[in-house]
Amino acid sequence: MATGHTDPERRDRIIASTLDLIAEEGIARVSHRRIAARAGVPLGSMTYHFDGIDALLHEAFRRFTDHIVAVFDERLSAPVDAEQAREAVVDLVHSLSEGSRRDLVLTQELYTLAARRPAFRDLTHEWMRRSRVHLERHFDPDTARQLDALIEGLTLHRALAAEPHARSLTVEAVSRITAPGRRRDS
Amino acid sequence: MATGHTDPERRDRIIASTLDLIAEEGIARVSHRRIAARAGVPLGSMTYHFDGIDALLHEAFRRFTDHIVAVFDERLSAPVDAEQAREAVVDLVHSLSEGSRRDLVLTQELYTLAARRPAFRDLTHEWMRRSRVHLERHFDPDTARQLDALIEGLTLHRALAAEPHARSLTVEAVSRITAPGRRRDS
Repeated sequence: MATGHTDPERRDRIIASTLDLIAEEGIARVSHRRIAARAGVPLGSMTYHFDGIDALLHEAFRRFTDHIVAVFDERLSAPVDAEQAREAVVDLVHSLSEGSRRDLVLTQELYTLAARRPAFRDLTHEWMRRSRVHLERHFDPDTARQLDALIEGLTLHRALAAEPHARSLTVEAVSRITAPGRRRDS
Repeated sequence: MATGHTDPERRDRIIASTLDLIAEEGIARVSHRRIAARAGVPLGSMTYHFDGIDALLHEAFRRFTDHIVAVFDERLSAPVDAEQAREAVVDLVHSLSEGSRRDLVLTQELYTLAARRPAFRDLTHEWMRRSRVHLERHFDPDTARQLDALIEGLTLHRALAAEPHARSLTVEAVSRITAPGRRRDS
């Protein structure tokens, strides 16, 4: 079973259990003791693998943002032109807003943490930067930035709305924000 | 000093202390005991005024959303035409994203709560509905909905960005999303 402190599986389990606990009960409930019990590791291995709770939160949220960026990667790598990229963005908004409630909660927990404590803001900076890399393959940097903000707002509002808006509204919004004819510099 | 259970000031103090505690330490830290101590009221008056922690959280976040909607009211009541409304929306994004860190944290705490527990989603529904009422004075309902999502995303990204985007980018995004010429039905 346990192969000691250096078991990489153990570190992974600690991170996975941390994300589970945050998703279910919130960041404030994270403690070495609770995570160790949940991951089924000795309390001592917590401090062996992580230099305190903040380091653990950092690592856990980095894994979470890697997961979300991978969804971006998957959806936005295929398109070969702007029109396909718009379609992929619409799919992304609808799959994120209809998808895992866990992802929605973890996203908001991370934003709350970053809003409260700037030391965690490198995670949101890096996340935004990586999302824009994909969008910039098909749109100029200013458009990519506007589109990234629009994706955020549409996804959140759709996930929390009483009556989630129809796909046609997302199509229209993405079309408007990426329409080259509206660019003032064009 | 204390004028008894029915003192309306006491109820107000409890709500204000709840928002303070959420802003500083998070929802998970809210308890009758902690709030009573912070508000300087006897523990017994907590259960007199509020039917449990959930009722207290509901009331506290309702007061918070009233405050944010009042900012919308103030900014978006004055404009007499769409052009002035666009300008007011840009001001709103920049004042919200540069303003109180407390408002940002409380907004994200509410979204996290609503994401995790649908019983609190009436607060986000009502908030979105009231924001759109203002926007619909100047834009059609579909545009108002898109614009509301854009405001959300631009404000959040600006507040959490390493290098907050310039006002000109917000102007451009608002212009694109509200440009009547881009409407497919026009």
